[in-house]
Amino acid sequence: MPEKYYIGVDLGGTNIKAGLVTENGKVVERTSIPTEPDGGPDHVIGRIAEAAEIVRKAGGVSKDLVGGVGIGSPGTLDIKAGVVRFPPNLPGWRNVPVVERFTAITGLKAVLENDANAAAYGEFWAGAARDVHSMVMFTLGTGVGGGIIIDDVLVHGNTDSAAEIGHITIEANGRKCPCGNWGCLEAYASANSMARRFVEAVDAGEPSSLADKARGNGKITSKMIYEAAVAGDELANRIFRETGNYLGIGIVNMLHTLNPARVVLSGGMIAAGDMLMRPVRETVEKRAIPDVRRNCDIVFATLGEDAGFIGGAGCALVAFGTSR
Amino acid sequence: MPEKYYIGVDLGGTNIKAGLVTENGKVVERTSIPTEPDGGPDHVIGRIAEAAEIVRKAGGVSKDLVGGVGIGSPGTLDIKAGVVRFPPNLPGWRNVPVVERFTAITGLKAVLENDANAAAYGEFWAGAARDVHSMVMFTLGTGVGGGIIIDDVLVHGNTDSAAEIGHITIEANGRKCPCGNWGCLEAYASANSMARRFVEAVDAGEPSSLADKARGNGKITSKMIYEAAVAGDELANRIFRETGNYLGIGIVNMLHTLNPARVVLSGGMIAAGDMLMRPVRETVEKRAIPDVRRNCDIVFATLGEDAGFIGGAGCALVAFGTSR
Repeated sequence: MPEKYYIGVDLGGTNIKAGLVTENGKVVERTSIPTEPDGGPDHVIGRIAEAAEIVRKAGGVSKDLVGGVGIGSPGTLDIKAGVVRFPPNLPGWRNVPVVERFTAITGLKAVLENDANAAAYGEFWAGAARDVHSMVMFTLGTGVGGGIIIDDVLVHGNTDSAAEIGHITIEANGRKCPCGNWGCLEAYASANSMARRFVEAVDAGEPSSLADKARGNGKITSKMIYEAAVAGDELANRIFRETGNYLGIGIVNMLHTLNPARVVLSGGMIAAGDMLMRPVRETVEKRAIPDVRRNCDIVFATLGEDAGFIGGAGCALVAFGTSR
Repeated sequence: MPEKYYIGVDLGGTNIKAGLVTENGKVVERTSIPTEPDGGPDHVIGRIAEAAEIVRKAGGVSKDLVGGVGIGSPGTLDIKAGVVRFPPNLPGWRNVPVVERFTAITGLKAVLENDANAAAYGEFWAGAARDVHSMVMFTLGTGVGGGIIIDDVLVHGNTDSAAEIGHITIEANGRKCPCGNWGCLEAYASANSMARRFVEAVDAGEPSSLADKARGNGKITSKMIYEAAVAGDELANRIFRETGNYLGIGIVNMLHTLNPARVVLSGGMIAAGDMLMRPVRETVEKRAIPDVRRNCDIVFATLGEDAGFIGGAGCALVAFGTSR
């Protein structure tokens, strides 16, 4: 039997990324096209189909050699039904049967997956956790997202809402989180919250080379804080240390809950490298149960922006593949 | 084929409980005999064998009708190897091959399970979560333990150390926990920590009907606080409310991590009933993602002290049963 190919699609509010992927997780072709969300659900589903067809044709693969398509979508989903319930960054979407419509257009079997889960599955299948059987991924961007894999299987939860690990409480009476709750990990360890805490410190009178830029208006990014920290800015270094410490506490909570073999950190903030990893490791060393800590590696993601569509393809392989 | 029976054993530092259980989780016979830990590992394994044989014979079941035995043990384990590595309450135990020795004595197939996991599996299989597929159990006693079941399967983790949910951090800079870390759930929501916080409040000058008993020496139990709270003691009521609020935060963290269908509260503290459940529910209502909260019931355990051996029997059924 000839090898099958799997197509992964990563549906974003701005761009749709897609890739043609082998059964072993190797990327053969990739593309990225604008989502054009203003066109509404049917238009966007047409774009998803277009992206999938672009990579299939570029790879010279006939439809009967495509084992299936995995579509990673934002928002709340009904995975079994293939329905996108409520994606915050796609205006006008409510209970859209994406899988059914995609298949009607393309004739290709498809499966839906949460976008954060898909990216986590990508790193698990073909990236930073490809050699283990359990993993927790933290995605550190404007918010904090994640994905959990136990015994080789993505944890979806009872209503496809598991792995909201940015919203575990690490400070019962802590900072307000964008979600409305208090003391969430995201309120401390996201790029946004890091910038906010930096601006607050400057407004409270702490000196910094970025003070003039930060004061009042607060147009400060985690990248600027990183560069200042590298250049020796004391406040920038402290804010990074604290961010890593808080993230370390979130990691310890996952270690004590799930005892995974690997923790993978992904997202824009991992560009900070050791500046982030050092305080993370210090905190985990100090706070985690020794046996649990010693049996878990904490590493950076390796697939970058490809993780989402690779993981989508991997989910299609799980759903439709004959063997694993 | 005649129905098989399964035997569950709950190995404690003081007593060994055992039960003969049907394939449907019904208890046919039960017993409890002293552990006699001072006799050392081989003696205790003999006691385990004795307890299992007591219930088998009481039920009039021949050995070939016993499908298997599940032994719930405290401490760190190597479940696959059937080895109890280091049980803190069994002096002199180090890497004891319990399963192998038990089978050598009895001729019965056996499987090892963590005692907290076994109790959780008991409630899942035959108790408060028997009608769902995912559950997190919190056991509230002198400490806080737990067990996690996802898609009908106990989560063991990479090194059989998952579900240490008493040691997730809920206050990054919070109270010292007996484990040495700071701000663990157990440092707030266990019976011991509740009593300690009560004594601290009295020592700080807060009035209470229990003040004379509490002051300085602190011989206060959660039961005494409960009774004072029922009688209208304001401090006792506040301490209960706070304990429930902290426990609620721990529950929210599990909801956001795993999106389970049910949370089960067990252990001595659930005798407080609504006094505990009310603040738990208030906190979950206030802090959890609405969709996740609405799809999870929070209930009390129903099997009491039988949960451990029932779950042990259930684990034996999973390990050795031909069908489920």
